[in-house]
Formats: sequence, structure tokens, C-alpha cells
Amino acid sequence: MEIKQYIKENEARFMEELFSLIRIPSISALPEHKDDMLACALRWKELLLEAGADEAMIMPSQGNPLVFAQKHISDEAPTILIYAHYDVMPAEPLELWKSQPFEPEIRDGHIWARGADDDKGQAMIQVKAFEYVVKHGLLKHNVKFIFEGEEEIGSPSLNAFIKEHKELLKADVILVSDTSMLGADLPSLTTGLRGLAYWEIEVTGPNRDLHSGHFGGAVANPINTLCSILAKVIDEDGRITVPHFYDDVEEVPAAEREMIAQIPFDEQKYMAAINVKALKGEKGYSTLERNSCRPSFDICGIWGGYTGEGSKTVLPSKAYAKVSCRLVPHQNHEKISKLFVDYINAVAPDYVKVKVTPMHGGEGYVCPITLPAYQAAEKGFAKAFGKKPLAVRRGGSIPIISDFEQILGIKTVLMGFGLESNAIHSPNENIPLDIFRKGIEAVVEFHLNY
Amino acid sequence: MEIKQYIKENEARFMEELFSLIRIPSISALPEHKDDMLACALRWKELLLEAGADEAMIMPSQGNPLVFAQKHISDEAPTILIYAHYDVMPAEPLELWKSQPFEPEIRDGHIWARGADDDKGQAMIQVKAFEYVVKHGLLKHNVKFIFEGEEEIGSPSLNAFIKEHKELLKADVILVSDTSMLGADLPSLTTGLRGLAYWEIEVTGPNRDLHSGHFGGAVANPINTLCSILAKVIDEDGRITVPHFYDDVEEVPAAEREMIAQIPFDEQKYMAAINVKALKGEKGYSTLERNSCRPSFDICGIWGGYTGEGSKTVLPSKAYAKVSCRLVPHQNHEKISKLFVDYINAVAPDYVKVKVTPMHGGEGYVCPITLPAYQAAEKGFAKAFGKKPLAVRRGGSIPIISDFEQILGIKTVLMGFGLESNAIHSPNENIPLDIFRKGIEAVVEFHLNY
Repeated sequence: MEIKQYIKENEARFMEELFSLIRIPSISALPEHKDDMLACALRWKELLLEAGADEAMIMPSQGNPLVFAQKHISDEAPTILIYAHYDVMPAEPLELWKSQPFEPEIRDGHIWARGADDDKGQAMIQVKAFEYVVKHGLLKHNVKFIFEGEEEIGSPSLNAFIKEHKELLKADVILVSDTSMLGADLPSLTTGLRGLAYWEIEVTGPNRDLHSGHFGGAVANPINTLCSILAKVIDEDGRITVPHFYDDVEEVPAAEREMIAQIPFDEQKYMAAINVKALKGEKGYSTLERNSCRPSFDICGIWGGYTGEGSKTVLPSKAYAKVSCRLVPHQNHEKISKLFVDYINAVAPDYVKVKVTPMHGGEGYVCPITLPAYQAAEKGFAKAFGKKPLAVRRGGSIPIISDFEQILGIKTVLMGFGLESNAIHSPNENIPLDIFRKGIEAVVEFHLNY
Repeated sequence: MEIKQYIKENEARFMEELFSLIRIPSISALPEHKDDMLACALRWKELLLEAGADEAMIMPSQGNPLVFAQKHISDEAPTILIYAHYDVMPAEPLELWKSQPFEPEIRDGHIWARGADDDKGQAMIQVKAFEYVVKHGLLKHNVKFIFEGEEEIGSPSLNAFIKEHKELLKADVILVSDTSMLGADLPSLTTGLRGLAYWEIEVTGPNRDLHSGHFGGAVANPINTLCSILAKVIDEDGRITVPHFYDDVEEVPAAEREMIAQIPFDEQKYMAAINVKALKGEKGYSTLERNSCRPSFDICGIWGGYTGEGSKTVLPSKAYAKVSCRLVPHQNHEKISKLFVDYINAVAPDYVKVKVTPMHGGEGYVCPITLPAYQAAEKGFAKAFGKKPLAVRRGGSIPIISDFEQILGIKTVLMGFGLESNAIHSPNENIPLDIFRKGIEAVVEFHLNY
């Protein structure tokens, strides 16, 4: 049976299955949902078996359990590992939802619910495509599934789990549907992610809060000093001043810059959506280059002194900041972390004590468009959406993708079907039914072409 | 009877009277002590009448009541207005006190209690000197007392009270014992106070917190921007860069600089006490000049973005700072406030919105050493402490002193007997009995010489 027809005939069941997952509020951030995590994992186990897996099992981790399943075709055939996550973000603020977050509803051609896209809906796309190819005898390779329950809280247990189960997770390529496309009419595949390095800075001036009248002007204020230090990190041209920071940054290839320039992008609309009058970034690069192919430096948090109501004069003892850099592929986050610590220590004046603590980091990621699995995915999108997808780099970081590469030595193809309007992590999360169907078609086509 | 002898014979009673005030926990910051405020005011009323006032009364204000008392000698004689405050700071942390803060104790020649110095002890010095001159028929001028109960919370009701009672408070000079000396062997009179201007700055970038991966590098981060703006306010030489900021700043006269240079000051000890390795301030000025005769700029508080545990990546919507300048005499705080607002708006880049809100301010103050009342005070200190007191400017601000000057048109002589070791506002506040006695002698001598 042709895939379009198969979806038509089985869609009511697909919805029932997806809704049965959505109705379990598997919110990983909230400890009171501990039982829901296991319930959701168990439901996936059932659904994976029903979809055609030979075996499926719940696997414990340091945190929430994982679901592993597989369909073995042949020892000689390549193996695809499909990663997804069954946990969701909290649904607050509840009053902004038009229908209940954990009572899925179909309205205006969309499925509305927490997890409708991220990642229950997108994972279901993978599972239903798998079901189709298995049931029609079209599967030529082995398929493994690993679904985790802690993605929305930063996958704290996944790294150790992967290291422990290298053999079980052995595969030739990883397939993930957890990213988004440029638009419903602008299919795209994510081929790059930025890395991350994160630090906390503590500046200590005097050993206690001082009277700013008695000491002000004579003793360095740690907040003033912290601001001066942080103001130095980016220069007039929007470049990061840390020595050797750009050493491993590959210039964006001309061909890629041309492709980026072709992405329909309305800067006025972009600014209006976030209500700013002007943009700011590294000189010589466009906005889309700046937020995807170039590194950035952001102060994520700052605090010190008196922050209550009204006014209190004080020359405080301490000032703090949490700062981060988005890195581009080839920049090693540990090397960058050290360069940054050295730099801040070097520019720190002798009238304060400065402590820079690396918090965490992750490598960037690039998926070569010459990868056979990438090309199969490209064909899938082209078939389902009627046009060849653009290869785009994204500015965010998905640390697990680089963990997979580092620990398992496998590339990942980010075959995501999300849309910005799907409002993941927000009230009224949804996925258009049309996209859900096209997603299944695209993944089926991937299997046929891999 | 000679004053020394008078103190000796009456000291037990002085202590009893002072202790009766101290035992009333008149903590203005804590609403649960509302009744104590009135109780303390009433006790002062009794004591002022017993000390020789013709009349004394409790006067309501928008906040805590004030105590007014007077002794009228002659319509032709000049009038001295003695200001003090009967409220005290909270006593926390209680566990650091060696004896109970509101159960005064005499140990090792000191009185230990909250308010022993600030300002019950120092006010008592004034009242007992007044008692002596009245009882011995030595008072040649009229004396008025005004004791408020909100000094430790910024005297919020005093300004309106003064404006309403200009006639009642009419005087030729104001006498205040609420400051400190350089040391027990280094008597000094405070002749200058710095003014203050205070602002809150709000920087708004995007209209909501953004994903630092998706937007970082392309959209200006308001914390980065705030740091850059604040870093510009002080230049390499430690000078404030606001245009026209120094227009009204009088260069410290050479004679005064010479006097300052003579003040025994150990910079190494000063640094060790606050545990800093180096000092920082305006080029061309000494530490004692910087913290008393020169303006300063301090960031009193800063906050924005994620300030919790661990790391969270965010490109926040807002960043805030509370900033203040200490001003020197002749700098008008309203003029400076406007200059600062204009400057920040001028340097604010177009990719953020910046709002600068003036919070409060006060003028600096100078007491000319040619003022007859100053010279009488100088004689008082010389007699009691055996050496001529130094005239020193202090870096702090006492807004009420400039309010008195502006509203009533009267200069104040700051005849304070505190010592740094008296630990005002801290656990184990105390006053040496020896200083208490010398204070009374000095004030008696002031009355005889004014």
C-alpha cells in the first residue's frame, strides 16, 4: 500500500496512540511526575513493539529510565539508531492554553497539546514510518531506538548511559526528529549546531560591604570592575577579544554564505517580533550568519550589591556574572574555556580578586551534506514537501549530538519537522496534521533511499 | 562646681538615665517597635525637662513623633538648635553580642549597648552639658532641642516637619553630636560632607528572554550593553566622564591638602582591614582626599538574567543597575542628576532602550572654620582632649544637614565624639566612659565660648 493511503487508513489509530502518550504528563523537571516518567516509557515500549520492533525494553539510568527497542534485519546491513525523548517541559502558564495541555485536541487541522511536537509528535513520525516499512517488507537495514526521559532537563544521565552501553547502541548513523524547519513551505535540514562554553565569574573587592560614602572613590567597587572586565570581552566590531579565540574558527565557505543569503529572511519582521530598533553583531556578517555560523558572547546573568526596592548606598564586597560563548564547529570547548579563564585573569586588575569557574560546555556539530544518510534524508524531504530542503546551520547547541559523535563515533542526521509556530516549550504547543503526515512520508522515503 | 567634679558626683545618675533610654528598643526599621518609639520620645521629654528645659513636648509627624524642648534666656541672645535622634538600628546578628544589646552594661571602661554611641549616648552628652550650664547659671543663649525618631531609616518625615515648623526651629546655628573623630587621641571636627545623587538604570533589549543559541551574536544582550555603558562612566584616570560633571567642583585648597596630609594614615593597615591588595581612585589625589573631598561613582547594585544555581543559557530581556555618585560641596545634586541622565541617554546605543530614573539626592555640606560656633566647638575639643581638633571632611552624606541649611538657612556644627571602634550599626556597639565624660566637658566649653 502506498504510504499516503496507509496514513489515511490508519490515522485514527496513530492519533489514539499519540494521544495515549500525551495524556501522561511526563514532565521531567517536576519530581511529582516521577511515576509518569515510567508510565510513559512503558507506553512507548508497547507502541514500539506494536510498530514492528523485535524487542523493546525499559533500561534504568541514574535518572529516569530509557526505552530501547530494535529490529534486526541482517548482521551485514547498516544500522540506524533513532534517538528521541519522551519527557516534556512543564505546561505553565496554564491560563494561556486554549485547551488543556495534557488533553490533546484536534482543532483547525492541528494537534494541540504539550508534546504534540516536542518530542512525542516528532518521535511518533519516526515510529509510524518505521511501522510502514516493516509491515510492507521494505526495511533493508537494522533499526534501533533509544528514547530518553531527561532531555528537557539537560540529559544529565545520558552521557554515562551511552558510555556504558556502547555495544548496544552501536550503529552507522543516528536519526533525530527534534529540530525545526525554516517554514512549512521552506523545508530544511539542520547541518550545524553551535557548541557552548559557560563560566561563572566572581569578583571580590573588600572583605565586606563598605559604606560608599566613607570608602567610595578610594576603594575599587567590584561591580564597577566586573562591568569593566566584561565590557572588554567584545570589541567595537563585535568580535570577541580573547586571544586565540578565533584560531580554530573556520571561515564560512563562500558557497554556504550564498545559500544563507538565499534563505528568505525579513530583518524588519525579525526586529519587530522581538521589539528592537536595531540589531548588533559581528561586523562583516549577516544576521543569519551571526546567529548560526559565528561565535557569540552573552552575559546570561549578573548580580551584586543591593537589588531590592528603592535606593541603598553600598560599596559591595562581591559581584557575580554567568557568561557563555556559543562556539562554532572545530572550536574545542575545553580549549576555549581555558583561553577565557586565562584572559579574564590576565585583564583582572590587582585591586580585586577574580575567580572564573568553568561550568559546562559542549562541542559544536557539523553534518556533512555528503553523508549518505544526509542525502537519503534530503530525498525524503524533497518527496514529502515537493522541494529540495536547504541545509542550514542553527545557532543553538544540542550537547547530546556531540556526545554521540564523541562517545560512539557516529554522525547524526537532524531530520526535524518542527515549525516556529508550533510553540514548543510554550502554551498552545501544536503540530499541523499536514506536517505530521509529510514527516512520516519523508522518513519512509529516507528508509527507502538509505 | 567645676564640670569634672559635677560629672563625678552625678555620673551614676547619668548612667541610669542613659540606660533607661537604651532599654527601650526604639528600632525605627521594625514596625513591631512602634510603641517603643513613642515610649523613647516620652522618656527624652522627661529627661530634657529634668535637665533644665522650660518646656518639652512630643510632636507628631508623618512617621514617628519628634521631641521638641527649649530653654529661653533672652530674645536678644542667639539660639542654638541641638539635633539628635532617639531611634536605633536593629541589633542583629544577636549571637555576636557579648552582652544583650538592650541591656546596657559597663565593662572595661566602656558602655556596651545598641545606641550607646549612636545616638543615645552622644545625645546624652549634649543634654548633660546643657544641664550643667543651666544649673550653674552659665547659659547665655537660648537652646532648642529637636530629637527625631527616623534617622536610621533616612529621616523620611523630617523634611516636611522642618518646612512646617520653621518658626519653632528658628535658630542661629545647629549643633549635632552624631559623627566621629579620627581617634581618641586625634580629636577632629567634621567640616565637610559629600552630597549624593542616586539613579536606577533599566536596559531593555528584546521584549522577552531569548534563546541565546538562536539569537546570540545577532541581537544585542542588555546585560552586555549595561556593562559597556557603566564601564564608560569612569575613565582610565579614575575620573567621571559625564560632561560638565566637574564644573562646580572646587579644587581642594592647598592648605586643606596639607592638613589632610598630616592626618596619621597607614595605607597598608587600611588595605589590610578590608583585605585588598591595591587601592584605586582618581589620579593625582591621595586616598584620604579621594574618599572625602572628591566625587565618586559606585554601582551599588546590579541584576539581570539568570542568577540561580548552576548554569542557564539565556539572552535576557532586561538588565538593571542602581548607581550613585558622592558629590562634593558646590555640586548641585539636581544638576548632576540631570547631567547623568542626559549622558547615559547619549551613550545608550540604538539597539536597546535605556531608562534612567533619579532616585534621591542631597547636597554636600561645608562648615566654614571661621564660623563662631565652629570656633567655640574647637575650643571645647581643645579643652577636653588637650589638643586643637583637626578640621576634616568626611566622605559620607547626612542629607538632613543640607536640608537644615536649605530650609532653615542655618549652618550646622558637627560636634561628634564617636570612634570607629564604637561599632555603631554593628554588634557590640559601645562608647568609652572617658570619651563620654570628655564629650560633656567639650560641649560645656562650647556653651561658655559661643
